[in-house]
Amino acid sequence: MSSKRRPDQPRPTRIEPFPTASPGSVVITQGKTRVLCTANVDADLPGWLRPRPGEPPKSGWVTAEYSMLPGSTPQRKKRGPDGRATEIQRLIGRVLRASVDMDKMPGVSITVDCDVLHADGGTRTASITGGFVALARCIRHARGKGLIKGDPVIGPVAAISVGVVDGVSCVDLDYDLDSRADVDMNVAIDHRGRFIEVQGTGERTTFTRPQLDRLLDLALSASKKLIAVQRRAVR
Amino acid sequence: MSSKRRPDQPRPTRIEPFPTASPGSVVITQGKTRVLCTANVDADLPGWLRPRPGEPPKSGWVTAEYSMLPGSTPQRKKRGPDGRATEIQRLIGRVLRASVDMDKMPGVSITVDCDVLHADGGTRTASITGGFVALARCIRHARGKGLIKGDPVIGPVAAISVGVVDGVSCVDLDYDLDSRADVDMNVAIDHRGRFIEVQGTGERTTFTRPQLDRLLDLALSASKKLIAVQRRAVR
Amino acid sequence: MSSKRRPDQPRPTRIEPFPTASPGSVVITQGKTRVLCTANVDADLPGWLRPRPGEPPKSGWVTAEYSMLPGSTPQRKKRGPDGRATEIQRLIGRVLRASVDMDKMPGVSITVDCDVLHADGGTRTASITGGFVALARCIRHARGKGLIKGDPVIGPVAAISVGVVDGVSCVDLDYDLDSRADVDMNVAIDHRGRFIEVQGTGERTTFTRPQLDRLLDLALSASKKLIAVQRRAVR
Amino acid sequence: MSSKRRPDQPRPTRIEPFPTASPGSVVITQGKTRVLCTANVDADLPGWLRPRPGEPPKSGWVTAEYSMLPGSTPQRKKRGPDGRATEIQRLIGRVLRASVDMDKMPGVSITVDCDVLHADGGTRTASITGGFVALARCIRHARGKGLIKGDPVIGPVAAISVGVVDGVSCVDLDYDLDSRADVDMNVAIDHRGRFIEVQGTGERTTFTRPQLDRLLDLALSASKKLIAVQRRAVR
Amino acid sequence: MSSKRRPDQPRPTRIEPFPTASPGSVVITQGKTRVLCTANVDADLPGWLRPRPGEPPKSGWVTAEYSMLPGSTPQRKKRGPDGRATEIQRLIGRVLRASVDMDKMPGVSITVDCDVLHADGGTRTASITGGFVALARCIRHARGKGLIKGDPVIGPVAAISVGVVDGVSCVDLDYDLDSRADVDMNVAIDHRGRFIEVQGTGERTTFTRPQLDRLLDLALSASKKLIAVQRRAVR
Amino acid sequence: MSSKRRPDQPRPTRIEPFPTASPGSVVITQGKTRVLCTANVDADLPGWLRPRPGEPPKSGWVTAEYSMLPGSTPQRKKRGPDGRATEIQRLIGRVLRASVDMDKMPGVSITVDCDVLHADGGTRTASITGGFVALARCIRHARGKGLIKGDPVIGPVAAISVGVVDGVSCVDLDYDLDSRADVDMNVAIDHRGRFIEVQGTGERTTFTRPQLDRLLDLALSASKKLIAVQRRAVR
Repeated sequence: MSSKRRPDQPRPTRIEPFPTASPGSVVITQGKTRVLCTANVDADLPGWLRPRPGEPPKSGWVTAEYSMLPGSTPQRKKRGPDGRATEIQRLIGRVLRASVDMDKMPGVSITVDCDVLHADGGTRTASITGGFVALARCIRHARGKGLIKGDPVIGPVAAISVGVVDGVSCVDLDYDLDSRADVDMNVAIDHRGRFIEVQGTGERTTFTRPQLDRLLDLALSASKKLIAVQRRAVR
Repeated sequence: MSSKRRPDQPRPTRIEPFPTASPGSVVITQGKTRVLCTANVDADLPGWLRPRPGEPPKSGWVTAEYSMLPGSTPQRKKRGPDGRATEIQRLIGRVLRASVDMDKMPGVSITVDCDVLHADGGTRTASITGGFVALARCIRHARGKGLIKGDPVIGPVAAISVGVVDGVSCVDLDYDLDSRADVDMNVAIDHRGRFIEVQGTGERTTFTRPQLDRLLDLALSASKKLIAVQRRAVR
Repeated sequence: MSSKRRPDQPRPTRIEPFPTASPGSVVITQGKTRVLCTANVDADLPGWLRPRPGEPPKSGWVTAEYSMLPGSTPQRKKRGPDGRATEIQRLIGRVLRASVDMDKMPGVSITVDCDVLHADGGTRTASITGGFVALARCIRHARGKGLIKGDPVIGPVAAISVGVVDGVSCVDLDYDLDSRADVDMNVAIDHRGRFIEVQGTGERTTFTRPQLDRLLDLALSASKKLIAVQRRAVR
Repeated sequence: MSSKRRPDQPRPTRIEPFPTASPGSVVITQGKTRVLCTANVDADLPGWLRPRPGEPPKSGWVTAEYSMLPGSTPQRKKRGPDGRATEIQRLIGRVLRASVDMDKMPGVSITVDCDVLHADGGTRTASITGGFVALARCIRHARGKGLIKGDPVIGPVAAISVGVVDGVSCVDLDYDLDSRADVDMNVAIDHRGRFIEVQGTGERTTFTRPQLDRLLDLALSASKKLIAVQRRAVR
Repeated sequence: MSSKRRPDQPRPTRIEPFPTASPGSVVITQGKTRVLCTANVDADLPGWLRPRPGEPPKSGWVTAEYSMLPGSTPQRKKRGPDGRATEIQRLIGRVLRASVDMDKMPGVSITVDCDVLHADGGTRTASITGGFVALARCIRHARGKGLIKGDPVIGPVAAISVGVVDGVSCVDLDYDLDSRADVDMNVAIDHRGRFIEVQGTGERTTFTRPQLDRLLDLALSASKKLIAVQRRAVR
Repeated sequence: MSSKRRPDQPRPTRIEPFPTASPGSVVITQGKTRVLCTANVDADLPGWLRPRPGEPPKSGWVTAEYSMLPGSTPQRKKRGPDGRATEIQRLIGRVLRASVDMDKMPGVSITVDCDVLHADGGTRTASITGGFVALARCIRHARGKGLIKGDPVIGPVAAISVGVVDGVSCVDLDYDLDSRADVDMNVAIDHRGRFIEVQGTGERTTFTRPQLDRLLDLALSASKKLIAVQRRAVR
């Protein structure tokens, strides 16, 4: 365990506006990990949601893309999709869809792009936590322009990594902790403390029910702090 | 909930040898879901594990590929990789690697292929459960041919889906249950009842700690039955 | 020549129903060679056959895809299309189209998928012979559901490989014979003994008119047996 | 049948040198059909033929690529490979390999490129007939430079299309005839009148043994004229 | 500097009709460099120019594709797009669009294909110079068929390479000169001596304003000769 | 012309360090245009520069990649390479190679990545100007770690866009100016005022020699200011 933090203490988190052409863009910073989150509205739906000609759309859609910039890792990251990115962006999309009532944004698609500026562990959870803020800010902008009538936002969703390192359960693994972790879990939690996604993997070993319980406690506790940061950043 | 089964009752599972060119191939059948699992040995390693010239290999490797055959779904499934398959085969690979000590098969790669013959829910967990049997049988064959000296198999790993349907926690979701599930979870468990992977998603809603606990209980109970089937099939 | 069979004696052929989500699926077994043949109906046409808006479709379409499963060969077969598979599936599609009157299934496309479970020579001809049965069974099912009104099936088409091995003309080459063959020919024949496709190649040598004649005689004789098996399997 | 030619009369064939950077390049002209054939030598082998380090190569290799230039068809042909081109270039390669003894060009690969300048039927057979000339001229050039020691050329191979149009068997189908043909056959024949490849397809109907015999007679007769043209062009 | 030409003397240029299925096709020859230029009309527009349903098209479009045939270089050129070809065909397209008033060919797309038969330096400028002739001839043919009503051709555009070799400014670099050039510039010029595109690169060194001026003088002088050749070839 | 700036006045330029995993990363800001420039060292060479086994490398290599982030444009930019990006990154690479003596960094490759955060005109020239700073800072870091012995940096190179808008020659076109420009030119200039690359295009019209001269004057003047900013940022 890193000497700088207690095992139950997440890294400090900042979510700040970042100027791009997409209104509402933010950068989330957790320790050294930094992810640029932008969201764009499109007045069209993916083919399988598009209504028949003449019928009004019944729903909207939210999707996500995740990518690591070439300079985000000490050894240059090659561009282009890979299996890991595919798995991660499917996770981000599922979780963000749980934060909005897509029936309240009929005919509107939003793509949330999470581009990792610096990767030091926890980039997928930072993408979810920052991505929600970009999504909520983008929706507010689209409501201001009349593209979305009601308010589809249900409430913040935050995600955090937890794991077992050297036998100790700890929260918000940076790269050093993550690379030594026996168990690695990513948990996405809503503002009421309910789970949206729980993904735990025994990277080098298996894990027991009490270990799982301890990790979920850590994640729940950390999620409350993150949601407070998100609420301030959305305003 | 289907009237045919109790919520805590998994579908009957059969794992039977199936003739292909890969020794040890099996088909796993769970209700209508059927997956062909084959495993092939290669006396080479992926680039990032290959030792420097002159040095002996320190480890082996196990990976998995997952695909749905065109005839496996009522509407023909197009060939070729997609995001969902990528996510699933990464899960299968991670779990199967937990079932073997790869240091005991230095220089040897094994690819486990899971090709869905008929998809009726639970194909990723059936792929893990059947895939372990193909892997273990393939290893035994490779030991017989002297390609692998020791016994890298740690023990069976089985996986099962659980979920909340119409407010009821139930096990081993078929397609009908899965498409109505509010919460969907896949759990991979080893022969000692320890977790290897827990992946839970609130598809239409979020879920609480007590719901999570109930689902894990169901998964643990079902995994014991599956592991008994696996033990018989490996022999 | 293999000691087990006479040069003019094809391997025993079985065509049996195999449960998938596609009604009418079969597995054809010829010696060790086994191919899964499934057929799916789609109430749409490829772009170049689609009628102008407002006009009724004049014809239907039949196409085929061929693939070898990773476990079908002693050394694992990599997934994904290659030149050989492209050439083979174009052949299968041409021959199967000769077995139906596509004007009698207007607006309907059928894709026949041939997935090789075990490859021991003759997989392309087995795909044709088994593919016809899957196609005919699929058409019967589509007629039962009212998707196709009349009966487009003209009659069985079967295919067989013949070749010259060690100077002897022989029929139904398995992998061992095929890899030693000087001349290799695939012949597709209809129920009246007429040719649909003749593809002969001098792999290591050229061949004469009398050799060609002897090979066609062998193919015609074998096709009659195959068509009898097909007729039983369609029923 | 076209009024300009008798059914047994092939179009006039010219094979002429055409200046490119590849010594030995020719254009073959048959009616309006024109194909540029170039051949390039590479002092390397494809991976599966490459000898182990320290061992001498035992054989050479000949392969072919086929492509239609965008301006070769009345409606612009899109660039890039497709299924038809794949099938055709595999045929060209197989036939050209029959014209040389590849053991006499150890360690040397030759690629014959056939690029269709104007497509008016019979482009695959023109590619074979012209491709042999480019190959033979390229080999002579490589022998002059010492890259190849002996003479690997066995003798000319020519190819011709034959078919049944409006019930009449005819030779060397142009686009107009080809598009009306019931039966279409491509035949590759060596200088002794032996077959290298026979590919006959009942495009709209099946065909009988006597029809096949008549078509082969036409092909054999035409091949003699083509081989005379080839012999002059190689010199 | 090559002993055969003075530094201000371009290679002799011929632009001659070449028979393909595309009316107006030409081959341009400059020294050993030869490029086949064909142009095809399509009565459709790229998506971003297509008018809304019911509205008439306001403009036409001209685009270009550039490719080197496998036999065009001493070492066989692999097929398929690469970064250099992409850059070149974007240049060709931009320049050719400057030679026509696309508002006078509403709803019509023309693709100019430049396929290099023999590459000996200056293939991109030869493609522009020859491409204009193919384009103008194709437009004349389309006007004859009534596809284009008015005359969109503004006037010839020609392109030429200039560069600094061994300290001497020279025009129309062949491969030998190009490979030794310190500065390399391609200039496209219209019939009034105005610039359409100037692309200069210090390949091994930087260049000064006086050098730039001298190179532009050479290019302007050579362009007049090329435009005279173009005018004769269009007729 | 925008009312905010005089035609000969470039936008204010800032080049500031930006934290990523690549030492030396900077963001260049010119008006609203912002580009992240990172540079990574690799102790390997591209295949065509790699020395034969046993020989020391004679040179190093510098290359560039350019991409627009999805949020960089008002309408979301799709990920993945396209023709425009290919053309731009080839330009960036050529110019940056002119700023270093690659013989002084034998065996070392550096990739400069230019990722556009916000696109408001001039992204390719900003990428060059900022990219040089990232490259120089990366080289200094690599020298500190001993990967590079001498000092390969020759001196700054800066690039600027100039153009003719509404008949007025102006410098540093933002998106609004660029979209109205008749002539558009990008000029890369070294610290001695010599040209590395001149790329001028008549987007809607052609241009004369005096116009070209005026544009080059503007570019030279602006480049001095940029090089002063670069010198401060490298320190």
